[in-house]
Amino acid sequence: MNRFICLLLLTCLSSSVFSQETSTKKENVTYYGKEHFLIEGTGVAETEKESPYDRLPASYKDKVRKPVWGLSKNSAGISLRFNSNSTSIKVKWSLLNDTKMNHMAETGIKGVDLYCKLNGVWTYVNTGRPTAKENEAALISSLSPVEREYKLYLPLYDGTTKVEIGIDNSSVITKPAADKQLPIVFYGTSILQGGCASRPGMVFTSIISRKLNVDCINFGFSGNGMMDPPIAELISGIKASFYVIDCLPNMTAKQVTDSVIPLATAIRKKNPNTPIVFVENVEYTRAIFQANLKKSMDEKNQALKTEFDKLVRGGMKDLIYISATGSIGTDNEGTVDGTHLTDLGFIRYADYLIEKFKENKLAIK
Amino acid sequence: MNRFICLLLLTCLSSSVFSQETSTKKENVTYYGKEHFLIEGTGVAETEKESPYDRLPASYKDKVRKPVWGLSKNSAGISLRFNSNSTSIKVKWSLLNDTKMNHMAETGIKGVDLYCKLNGVWTYVNTGRPTAKENEAALISSLSPVEREYKLYLPLYDGTTKVEIGIDNSSVITKPAADKQLPIVFYGTSILQGGCASRPGMVFTSIISRKLNVDCINFGFSGNGMMDPPIAELISGIKASFYVIDCLPNMTAKQVTDSVIPLATAIRKKNPNTPIVFVENVEYTRAIFQANLKKSMDEKNQALKTEFDKLVRGGMKDLIYISATGSIGTDNEGTVDGTHLTDLGFIRYADYLIEKFKENKLAIK
Repeated sequence: MNRFICLLLLTCLSSSVFSQETSTKKENVTYYGKEHFLIEGTGVAETEKESPYDRLPASYKDKVRKPVWGLSKNSAGISLRFNSNSTSIKVKWSLLNDTKMNHMAETGIKGVDLYCKLNGVWTYVNTGRPTAKENEAALISSLSPVEREYKLYLPLYDGTTKVEIGIDNSSVITKPAADKQLPIVFYGTSILQGGCASRPGMVFTSIISRKLNVDCINFGFSGNGMMDPPIAELISGIKASFYVIDCLPNMTAKQVTDSVIPLATAIRKKNPNTPIVFVENVEYTRAIFQANLKKSMDEKNQALKTEFDKLVRGGMKDLIYISATGSIGTDNEGTVDGTHLTDLGFIRYADYLIEKFKENKLAIK
Repeated sequence: MNRFICLLLLTCLSSSVFSQETSTKKENVTYYGKEHFLIEGTGVAETEKESPYDRLPASYKDKVRKPVWGLSKNSAGISLRFNSNSTSIKVKWSLLNDTKMNHMAETGIKGVDLYCKLNGVWTYVNTGRPTAKENEAALISSLSPVEREYKLYLPLYDGTTKVEIGIDNSSVITKPAADKQLPIVFYGTSILQGGCASRPGMVFTSIISRKLNVDCINFGFSGNGMMDPPIAELISGIKASFYVIDCLPNMTAKQVTDSVIPLATAIRKKNPNTPIVFVENVEYTRAIFQANLKKSMDEKNQALKTEFDKLVRGGMKDLIYISATGSIGTDNEGTVDGTHLTDLGFIRYADYLIEKFKENKLAIK
């Protein structure tokens, strides 16, 4: 009897947990959990992570510096892809921290961003606006009931502990096949993490991902993109079309000098032929007024170029150096604070990088 | 004796108020109040207003609808212009409401935005980030001590009750001569009020103002740009290079039909030859997915065109009709929510309007 009650309780509990994670009905909407969509923008298997929307494996908790671990819980660049014929799309999402910042819209910090493939082009639909740790939003309605492919970008500067997609009871949601092309893997700073996009889909890696139809993996760590050896080790283990290293804003010239060769060597060891792209320090718009800021940028770029040239002279192949001059336009308008990009800066930066990738014949494999 | 004490108290009080409003010293910085800069982006004399950074005359408090009056306290589009040879610029500003919104950065809602004229071009310097009702920010330092011309844009979605500019004790601040050209006067909605620019300088009227070197006056009232007769009366009294009416997102087709001719007639009565520009409803990006949204936009635009054509047939001259098609680009990426523009949408919209102004030979007088 006791065993029966235990079993019954266990069944109820499992069922409850299961229903929360997979499908819950409310009014005419059924919500579906993570078994029903493809998680993209991550190079780490779900089984290795504390949460499916984290960016680092659990095993890195004691390998990386504490702030890097904290930031790895932010779901920057991670997205969900699914197909549905629903006439409406709703979403529920739960946040880890409920982060606040005064130079970035909350929609970008901790909102969700829906895109739909329209005639082969990923097209913006709507943004879920956050109100608390637990959020719910109706993203679109009045659609014709035909199957469409969707992508939902997760919060850039907060952790996502749970997401559910709500569709009409009478409709279906299916999980698309995973992309077979190798992703582009990015390692960098607060700008790469998405500071300060108005909504999650506007960080430059997600713009590039949509424009080139390739998955992009975002290892942007605000204030902490410092060419750390554990991150070098991690990205070396992710098979990529190519790697983009965009860390200079968080480093001193001395740190650049000390770190470029070890980073490139670590990646090259496991990936003999994969191109590695180094990007100069993004142009701080105030540098035109402040000689000391210009000098600091120039010194870091010079340090990068010096180490890059040493690598080339040492025989390392498939290395690309990208200047940052003009990368966010020439009108000084692309940032919210002289450093962090707005959607305007991000679209310019994405277009600039795509142009440079093409000039350097960097192929998606 | 009593009279003496009263006088003494009054003197101290005046002195204190005066020093707060004109110049206060702190460390090596002296702060200067409104006597020391030119207030731009307003068509209403300071003496007629409750606060110098309001947008409507005090006499309109009982003439306009209550929400319009509330929104008129927001300092959208208002800026301060001054010259200084200081090596650093600081700012203190006080807010009326400490507004919060989850789809707009606080820097845009209630921050301040500094530009400097560099080789004849207004160039972004930095943004003061708000933290509370009373704010203080160091905007730039390490400048060479030569005279420069500055423009500080005030909060878009909050009232500004006080602003002071801080410069080096040893430097000077001077008030430039007022612009002699007639401003462009805009009347519209939340988008015109600046929703959702990342910082105050990025609302489209301020971009146009910088690009065309002309003062722009912003009568954007969030949710309330409805061609109201009192606002028609007010703008009719402001001599302008031309008027731009951009109200459709806040109106029904029926309201458009009822309001266009009275509005144009009111303006024309006092301004026989000043061009009046009518702009179609901004393109809601979700309209490509939702037939009902597209229909509603089309109906409003049709109502506008019908009334516009009646005015032209009736003999009214100098009327310009501007289509909104393509005005925020064609990639659907220019908004934060399908309606409100980001910096990306705003720069596209500004460039589009400038192009249309030129095509229609609209001159700054």
